[in-house]
Amino acid sequence: MKETQVIFNSKPELKDPIVIEGLPGIGLVGKIAVDHLLSKKKTTPFCEIYSPYFPPQVITDKKGIVHQVKNEFHHFNENGQDFIIIAGDFQGMTPESQYEIAGKILDVLEEFKPKVIYTLGGLGIGKVVKRPAVFAAANNAKLIESHKEFKLKFTGREGGGIFGASGLLLGLGALRELDGVCLMAETLGQVVDAKAAKVLLEKLSKVVGIEVDMRDLKKKAKKTEEELSKIKQMQDEQEHALQMALAGGQVSSDEDVDRYIR
Amino acid sequence: MKETQVIFNSKPELKDPIVIEGLPGIGLVGKIAVDHLLSKKKTTPFCEIYSPYFPPQVITDKKGIVHQVKNEFHHFNENGQDFIIIAGDFQGMTPESQYEIAGKILDVLEEFKPKVIYTLGGLGIGKVVKRPAVFAAANNAKLIESHKEFKLKFTGREGGGIFGASGLLLGLGALRELDGVCLMAETLGQVVDAKAAKVLLEKLSKVVGIEVDMRDLKKKAKKTEEELSKIKQMQDEQEHALQMALAGGQVSSDEDVDRYIR
Amino acid sequence: MKETQVIFNSKPELKDPIVIEGLPGIGLVGKIAVDHLLSKKKTTPFCEIYSPYFPPQVITDKKGIVHQVKNEFHHFNENGQDFIIIAGDFQGMTPESQYEIAGKILDVLEEFKPKVIYTLGGLGIGKVVKRPAVFAAANNAKLIESHKEFKLKFTGREGGGIFGASGLLLGLGALRELDGVCLMAETLGQVVDAKAAKVLLEKLSKVVGIEVDMRDLKKKAKKTEEELSKIKQMQDEQEHALQMALAGGQVSSDEDVDRYIR
Amino acid sequence: MKETQVIFNSKPELKDPIVIEGLPGIGLVGKIAVDHLLSKKKTTPFCEIYSPYFPPQVITDKKGIVHQVKNEFHHFNENGQDFIIIAGDFQGMTPESQYEIAGKILDVLEEFKPKVIYTLGGLGIGKVVKRPAVFAAANNAKLIESHKEFKLKFTGREGGGIFGASGLLLGLGALRELDGVCLMAETLGQVVDAKAAKVLLEKLSKVVGIEVDMRDLKKKAKKTEEELSKIKQMQDEQEHALQMALAGGQVSSDEDVDRYIR
Repeated sequence: MKETQVIFNSKPELKDPIVIEGLPGIGLVGKIAVDHLLSKKKTTPFCEIYSPYFPPQVITDKKGIVHQVKNEFHHFNENGQDFIIIAGDFQGMTPESQYEIAGKILDVLEEFKPKVIYTLGGLGIGKVVKRPAVFAAANNAKLIESHKEFKLKFTGREGGGIFGASGLLLGLGALRELDGVCLMAETLGQVVDAKAAKVLLEKLSKVVGIEVDMRDLKKKAKKTEEELSKIKQMQDEQEHALQMALAGGQVSSDEDVDRYIR
Repeated sequence: MKETQVIFNSKPELKDPIVIEGLPGIGLVGKIAVDHLLSKKKTTPFCEIYSPYFPPQVITDKKGIVHQVKNEFHHFNENGQDFIIIAGDFQGMTPESQYEIAGKILDVLEEFKPKVIYTLGGLGIGKVVKRPAVFAAANNAKLIESHKEFKLKFTGREGGGIFGASGLLLGLGALRELDGVCLMAETLGQVVDAKAAKVLLEKLSKVVGIEVDMRDLKKKAKKTEEELSKIKQMQDEQEHALQMALAGGQVSSDEDVDRYIR
Repeated sequence: MKETQVIFNSKPELKDPIVIEGLPGIGLVGKIAVDHLLSKKKTTPFCEIYSPYFPPQVITDKKGIVHQVKNEFHHFNENGQDFIIIAGDFQGMTPESQYEIAGKILDVLEEFKPKVIYTLGGLGIGKVVKRPAVFAAANNAKLIESHKEFKLKFTGREGGGIFGASGLLLGLGALRELDGVCLMAETLGQVVDAKAAKVLLEKLSKVVGIEVDMRDLKKKAKKTEEELSKIKQMQDEQEHALQMALAGGQVSSDEDVDRYIR
Repeated sequence: MKETQVIFNSKPELKDPIVIEGLPGIGLVGKIAVDHLLSKKKTTPFCEIYSPYFPPQVITDKKGIVHQVKNEFHHFNENGQDFIIIAGDFQGMTPESQYEIAGKILDVLEEFKPKVIYTLGGLGIGKVVKRPAVFAAANNAKLIESHKEFKLKFTGREGGGIFGASGLLLGLGALRELDGVCLMAETLGQVVDAKAAKVLLEKLSKVVGIEVDMRDLKKKAKKTEEELSKIKQMQDEQEHALQMALAGGQVSSDEDVDRYIR
């Protein structure tokens, strides 16, 4: 296998589907949100992507059966609206494979003439916040207009990058005249963040008009919150110690200060 | 040479062959097992794989003659059962080449309609064990059923990965409806481990129903065992020192404990 | 997208255009010069290059609209002379992609039979100089002759390399019989250097015979100058300390001297 | 340019040419030998190889004219024997490009039905020796036989690798039934080694029956020798200090010994 391969198990008839993408990324925020959604809706997998740019491995299940790592398309219908979900084990491991795989995903989506592609991700901010905000970006001005009612934060990130599938599906999608919106929940960055995923999925549910049973995700978010509050406490203590040190000379050398800061 | 090349020296007629793969991997466990098997059976090499993703080098023999690094297919027959052995100097050096080469190997195997592909490898566990267990994984449920009699450990590795050829031949093989079973012997991880290779080959022999003269491999396993028991003793001493330190306060700081552990 | 893509928005009729390239490189010198030129001339974008070898990302503008990272061709006319400007967010991230993208750029340029291709860049010299010199290189002897009047420094860099687009457009251009001249302004190397960009653009303006409003760039150059003069002061102090040390024996070993220099 | 390109300037008629390859490698030994040979013979360049796997750069000459980095074929005749020399600025920068470029070189050579391909290189031994030995390897047994009279060291390197063009031209050449011999002069490894190059070229001259004016190379070898003898002295002192330390306890800790050894 030298090329990324797309394998259709079936070709569903879908009308103006809304696409929701959540592949692994910062804090696994998008993946957790989409995997939760998958677990709560009756979805039908219909297309798989295999790529030599995913890690060269299989994953074992609890019976000892392996499956080749992949990305997968599912569909479901709610209140007459068709949805496509894009989930998966990994994103491409090299920068250029990100382009190849995003291109393959867009090839699949183009066939279904999607209404909007929503890509989900985390926005790494390097600190713990009580209530993570959800930022947004779109690949044309009309989308910003049409999303006004949802009070998404489109501004405030001038010059900022969106990396990986969540960015490329919008950027390359625009070249194919596919509408795309990226929703990003603030997250610390180094921690798997179910809390940001919860906030993100709640926002998405409103935007796309679906009901999602959030109970399991809320439990996970609770655990993340505890973890984050410990990190926050540490950060605060470090900050305090640093202030004390700088003010009162309680630490004897630069090296020690450095140790506090880290 | 920009592509992996498959060169057939001959096309043997083989009936439902059982395939045994052992390429370099963790602890060289699979390679040692298969190279030993090769040295004890009268096998015929019939196909070579050269790849730009192997290291760009030749290897010199004792006369000063070089050979290009490669993977190689051999066949032999025992008690009316045909076997194919896959051995080689290296695996592909980049993740994506792992996919390419596994694909080429499967292209070759598909022609012979193999009964089962057995892939051999080490399972790095980071510690020394007296009797390494042999874990297994399969690429469909029927295989687990049909291998019950051999008491292989199929469970206990949920979510675990199998990397390289041993994993991909199963994962990509499943997409071609080729049956595959991976056998993995526990190994420390950083040490060339002939002992794990011996345990693995003994298990494989029973599963595929062949007799293998194990004497030379037992000698090598003995040496590995001595090496491992030294490492084990060191590990135990470190563990003990750590326990003492934690209990009796003999070490003064985290840093020192850390030094013991390493 | 597996290959670099060239998308023409229009095909302008241009007569013997002069090409000016300024993509990101050392100190962003070439990019700053060309971006400033773009901001001061009424230019028409007519061709875009997208590549899987640019970083896999989009960039957000102040409204929250994303654009896929790219290289872009613009044209303008001054005093009857046609010009093509090549600008962009990034260069290719891998060495081999540099060749691919330079090849694609040359494919585009060849269609317009350019008079000369001017490539702009910084020449990292690792120290701060009061008045950065502009070095030059050409891809044939006739160009050096025809540029004599502009007093460019063609000599003094024997064996020196020119890396990236600024080098390859000349080197690969020569194989297609396209004339090319590289202009390089001296720069520290680690600092974004608007001052070197200003010096470079002033020189280029004379060579290609255009007028450029330099006021905004002069302001930026002023800021760079302040930053550089701080760095210069630090360098001088280090130098002085070293001299003292070497003269008066205040440091005891080579290692210590080394510490001063770093 | 996405692929390695071969450009013929002319197609000389050559009868059973002997090929001599010396591209950059350990200690630049092969390159120095072949570049010296090129400077002393009246050779005609007839073929160039450009590759996206060479560094993305041009090199400036003393006039300020750039040339694209490349590999180059030259030919000359001595005493009725045709010779092809392969020289160049770089080897391919990635492992797989080594295969691609070696394949392209063999494509060129195959057209001329070469008698033997001699590849030149250094053999890194990590220490300074008074008289570097010349080791050899061949890609078939007949060549070892036919080279007996030259007393080359074919044995003593069992399992040893030969990397890059010098290895692959033999290994991949054998698959095309092209005879190849590699000559390797012992060298320290980290130092540009004109002395090893001299020893190597002297040996090669005898083997292929040519006269080479060695004076310039001898001067360079002299300089290398001085440099190496300083390194040797340092190595000896370190060795001595270590012996003393181990014997008489003059150093107080492992760390200090370590410092001596490095």
